[in-house]
Amino acid sequence: MRWMRFEVDGDISYGIAEGDSVRLVQGDPFDGYEETGAQYAISDVKLLIPVVPKTFYAAGLNYVEHIEEQARLHGREINLPKKADVGYRANNALIAHGETIVLPKDVTEKVEYEAELVAVIGKKAKNITEAEALDYILGFTIGNDLSERSWQKEDRTLWRAKNTDTFSPMGPWIDTDANLADMETVVSLNSEEKIRFETNKMLFSVEHYLSTISKYIELQPGDVLWMGTEGASPNLNHGDVVDIEITGIGILSNPIIKES
Amino acid sequence: MRWMRFEVDGDISYGIAEGDSVRLVQGDPFDGYEETGAQYAISDVKLLIPVVPKTFYAAGLNYVEHIEEQARLHGREINLPKKADVGYRANNALIAHGETIVLPKDVTEKVEYEAELVAVIGKKAKNITEAEALDYILGFTIGNDLSERSWQKEDRTLWRAKNTDTFSPMGPWIDTDANLADMETVVSLNSEEKIRFETNKMLFSVEHYLSTISKYIELQPGDVLWMGTEGASPNLNHGDVVDIEITGIGILSNPIIKES
Repeated sequence: MRWMRFEVDGDISYGIAEGDSVRLVQGDPFDGYEETGAQYAISDVKLLIPVVPKTFYAAGLNYVEHIEEQARLHGREINLPKKADVGYRANNALIAHGETIVLPKDVTEKVEYEAELVAVIGKKAKNITEAEALDYILGFTIGNDLSERSWQKEDRTLWRAKNTDTFSPMGPWIDTDANLADMETVVSLNSEEKIRFETNKMLFSVEHYLSTISKYIELQPGDVLWMGTEGASPNLNHGDVVDIEITGIGILSNPIIKES
Repeated sequence: MRWMRFEVDGDISYGIAEGDSVRLVQGDPFDGYEETGAQYAISDVKLLIPVVPKTFYAAGLNYVEHIEEQARLHGREINLPKKADVGYRANNALIAHGETIVLPKDVTEKVEYEAELVAVIGKKAKNITEAEALDYILGFTIGNDLSERSWQKEDRTLWRAKNTDTFSPMGPWIDTDANLADMETVVSLNSEEKIRFETNKMLFSVEHYLSTISKYIELQPGDVLWMGTEGASPNLNHGDVVDIEITGIGILSNPIIKES
């Protein structure tokens, strides 16, 4: 099942996407819903981010080649994280599938994509085991954790580097059937494939992160956990389009402009 | 004017507090409201956090003596931040005035309070100057940024150290008339005064933080910015009560228990 969140005639609703159309529901996938009978062509509605997270968790350094690349970039030793210490991103930066990433005019050339699997929490989870963790996930979507590497190096926090407005595209929808073991992440820049990796080949698994977080925090319906990325990215420029495809979920596509 | 958010008869509302009573409104202080005529004794309603932030900003190291103390604790050189790089906290950790801070059973003895002024954004703010920054603030409330210093030292991020459930008391209300220049912060532990400092004697001012953030991010109504704390804290224990008073706002008081 694919959960879309969208706007039509000024109203924001959830719906169940199938093929080219979406069936509008009353309610939402977290607290319960009823089908209304209303149906729209997906091309006739405005897609929104599939959920407004209560808390926006980000796994950060979670794929080996990406960690090695980041260590080189920052002139640091390669240190693989020894524990699943989660980080945070900010809701202000979220935009939907198809919306435009806007680079402030003072960005350097070192703007990069980070293609990430996003787990969407479906129900409250406290002190859960790894074995049961997937039962607490409603489904998966896709995230692009845009990163300005000069700011990342220079600032004390990631605030500008990763949380500037529009720097967190997320979507297009939440797929409840996508299977972790089958997923491959493919990133294309202007329709040219740049990287392809096994999505689930993480340093710390989705299940491990959720179990670990839930020891101290009750995860809430609608919370999202971004799982980190693999490899490196070319520099992104005005006019580029970044497509991130994950098997079983779909494609998150966003054009980029730079403020002049 | 004092904006309270509260629950009564199962409904969540905003109201305007005056003396011992609160006048219920329809709507909220951000998008507009109308008085309803309904009025309650404050003692008869359940206080909630005064706003659920869209984004929860935290200034972090922003008072000189606190920075020196933290450097000693972590065995680092004293480096005053050179720029107002903002950090983030997580909504999951927020609790209201009067609610109980619950320490997980595996905390060490190094649990500390951090008494903070909280600016609540009242309207959208992008590219604002320092001179106009205060016009974008609805008012001020109080925050207690509970910190487990062993976890802060040991983890790669602040996730457990500062964002464990119940570690971010915020309240009791939003005061729209409190004046930055007149504020003094006083922290009492079990009714004994522990520290008193000039609230506005910050490394980087509220106005500077808001202007800086707004260069990259459009601040939204309901966003909160926690301004950091001064000095050090004694270790907190099961049975303690922490009161934080800021002139012109009020008192944020929370008892502490430790899970057994």
